[in-house]
Amino acid sequence: MRVESVLVRDVRFPTSRQRDGSDSMNEGDYSATYVTLETDEGLAGHGLTFTNGRGNEICVAAVKALARHLEGRELDPFPTGMRSLVLDLTTDSQLRWLGPEKGVLQMATGALVNAAWDLQARRAGKPLWKLLVDLSPEELVGALDLSYVTDALTPAEAVSLLRDRAAGKEERERACREDGFPAYTTSTGWLGYPDEKVRRLCREAIAGGWTAFKMKVGTDLADNTRRAALMREEIGPGRLLMLDANQCWDVPEAIRQMEALSGFDPYWIEEPTSPDDVLGHAAIANAVAPVGVATGEVCPNRVVFKQLLQARALRFVQVDSCRMAGISEALVVILMAAKFGVPVCPHGGGVGLCEYVQHLSFFDAVALGGADGEAICEYVDHLHEHFLDPCVVRAARYRAPTAPGTSIAMKPGSLDTYEFPGGPAWRE
Amino acid sequence: MRVESVLVRDVRFPTSRQRDGSDSMNEGDYSATYVTLETDEGLAGHGLTFTNGRGNEICVAAVKALARHLEGRELDPFPTGMRSLVLDLTTDSQLRWLGPEKGVLQMATGALVNAAWDLQARRAGKPLWKLLVDLSPEELVGALDLSYVTDALTPAEAVSLLRDRAAGKEERERACREDGFPAYTTSTGWLGYPDEKVRRLCREAIAGGWTAFKMKVGTDLADNTRRAALMREEIGPGRLLMLDANQCWDVPEAIRQMEALSGFDPYWIEEPTSPDDVLGHAAIANAVAPVGVATGEVCPNRVVFKQLLQARALRFVQVDSCRMAGISEALVVILMAAKFGVPVCPHGGGVGLCEYVQHLSFFDAVALGGADGEAICEYVDHLHEHFLDPCVVRAARYRAPTAPGTSIAMKPGSLDTYEFPGGPAWRE
Repeated sequence: MRVESVLVRDVRFPTSRQRDGSDSMNEGDYSATYVTLETDEGLAGHGLTFTNGRGNEICVAAVKALARHLEGRELDPFPTGMRSLVLDLTTDSQLRWLGPEKGVLQMATGALVNAAWDLQARRAGKPLWKLLVDLSPEELVGALDLSYVTDALTPAEAVSLLRDRAAGKEERERACREDGFPAYTTSTGWLGYPDEKVRRLCREAIAGGWTAFKMKVGTDLADNTRRAALMREEIGPGRLLMLDANQCWDVPEAIRQMEALSGFDPYWIEEPTSPDDVLGHAAIANAVAPVGVATGEVCPNRVVFKQLLQARALRFVQVDSCRMAGISEALVVILMAAKFGVPVCPHGGGVGLCEYVQHLSFFDAVALGGADGEAICEYVDHLHEHFLDPCVVRAARYRAPTAPGTSIAMKPGSLDTYEFPGGPAWRE
Repeated sequence: MRVESVLVRDVRFPTSRQRDGSDSMNEGDYSATYVTLETDEGLAGHGLTFTNGRGNEICVAAVKALARHLEGRELDPFPTGMRSLVLDLTTDSQLRWLGPEKGVLQMATGALVNAAWDLQARRAGKPLWKLLVDLSPEELVGALDLSYVTDALTPAEAVSLLRDRAAGKEERERACREDGFPAYTTSTGWLGYPDEKVRRLCREAIAGGWTAFKMKVGTDLADNTRRAALMREEIGPGRLLMLDANQCWDVPEAIRQMEALSGFDPYWIEEPTSPDDVLGHAAIANAVAPVGVATGEVCPNRVVFKQLLQARALRFVQVDSCRMAGISEALVVILMAAKFGVPVCPHGGGVGLCEYVQHLSFFDAVALGGADGEAICEYVDHLHEHFLDPCVVRAARYRAPTAPGTSIAMKPGSLDTYEFPGGPAWRE
């Protein structure tokens, strides 16, 4: 299969107007660098990386720079061809300097890699998660790049791990198809929402069957305390309350704030400090236990995740689907998490992330058994109406996708309306 | 002082044609995202970040996205205004998602921050290093952003550190002006050079007074062994041989190769594995001692440097001048290195890096006393002819810059000739 062309579009949704998605660091217009790979077989693969508004044009420029590795390329046979594609993108002898394997370049790599996975899943006529669970352990591991992490997980160990977990796989797949996969909601507690809106959203969510709720915290401890009391009051003692600091604290401040907030029985504290601070997360994890530390949505690559696991610095792996080298690198992280026995709780939200990460969770649940039922997938109820095959969540559980591909193809009308800066949504 | 406009140019030098700068990962066309800040006082500040060729246009796009924080801005008073500028650039509520504080966005931030330092040094009529050493401890620390590193170095500790080292400062400044600062050469051992060229360059360098030599190594141990033997034979037992792997090994492979290469008495092994792998560097450092581990040229920010120091994972801090948030973040790293007693050996080379880092080394030597004479600054003899005030190295020592500014202003003719893609050097 030959890639004939790489198309890329700058698509932005004006979410900041309602302060949806607001937290201690971000106030964004949820955006996508949206890639389409057109092939000589008539099949097209779609992929995206999520950005926060301004700067999406930089990711678009990065996709254009990386496209040289795909334009006119005869794809190597699946599944090993996925590994050679990732390596060609991440080791470009000039572009690599702009990372390496981090930031804009890695996000653009994610969009391209994800489009290639979409292509392969469509070609196989399967939803991504099913394509993945049907690969043999050798095939799956052969599709991945484990460079720089072999001190934690060698390819042979990864194969053994998948083989060891193969028992019960069919039963797990049946259960996933019938019961779905558990989700939690982030839609209730954005930092920019007034108290009354938070209360109303909590009540609506409880009525909808939700049992786990995320709340944003910031630098002001008094404000955090007031809002945590409000959330806990609304959801009662039996439901889970997750706190999310979005990196706004230094290490000593994270420990100080969590001592004060521990009375509200938080399940986890997410992104308590700089996402690059492995040792800082380890210090916080040690200080705030039994509250678990969660992180990963902006983790640049498998090497940082490896260390977070090695240092026992996190209790929940919040893998993202397109910040790293896309689904390929996310799978490496999921395999490492399985080895270390840490549950994978992927990062949803933004635009398209829930569509993507449901596939990762279903793969994790079926192929690896999740981690003792602690795995839970984030759900945010924005912007799903723009997708042709949007994720379906019922009674706080993701339903297993059935359509071929990665669920990420956007409606052509949405692409046209929200294209930046020329689309009607931005011209007005 | 008000910034009236932010100009940015894509400048590239076709160095890959001679394989200058070739190593196990890179074969680049040394390039600069070159920024000029024009002010209402008629003064202009110049700054750049170095890239490796393809993708320089992505950094240019990132500078344009960040320029909103400078265009029309009344700069806050110096020196505290440098801190507020850095914070505005690194915490933009939408652009931050593209890092945070890493990759293309951080490199573009570096170019802008460096241009602001150039402006301040020109306004003060001093070379940058002298501007810095003349600030009081409180003024210097007040100009810097220590967020995320206060568990290793608080602002108060940084002030104390500078005060403690103030004794002997005048004598150190006099010595630096008279004797310069020690340098080592990287120009002899590029991976793409044939053996005979390496031998010739070693002999020429020894004749020029050089006593410390860097050699690139790659994945092939037999080839590394042959080339290390050749270099050691040429430079003899009394001179320093540094090895540089440019990240081409996994952790176990780094340990294996260094066991085999230790017979050539290397002074350090540089970038033995992924630059993000703090724990991996610590494991390697432990295994290869007394050979020291050196890293930093692609370290994304102060948080990763902090951990490398906390974990005793490196013996030489190879701070870069424009990959992080420019000179501002480099100074934070230099202060942390001083606290941990690790020598700073800045990353030179590329285009303009030697011009920049000489200022960092002279600041380190004068204000902090270096680290017991082990500090040494990289020198590579490419592309200096394009600068109006190029660095001067004599008898293997940098001479202290005397002209106001950061030594980074390029000749207008060079900017025009090498502008990509329209300049004459690229049109032919």
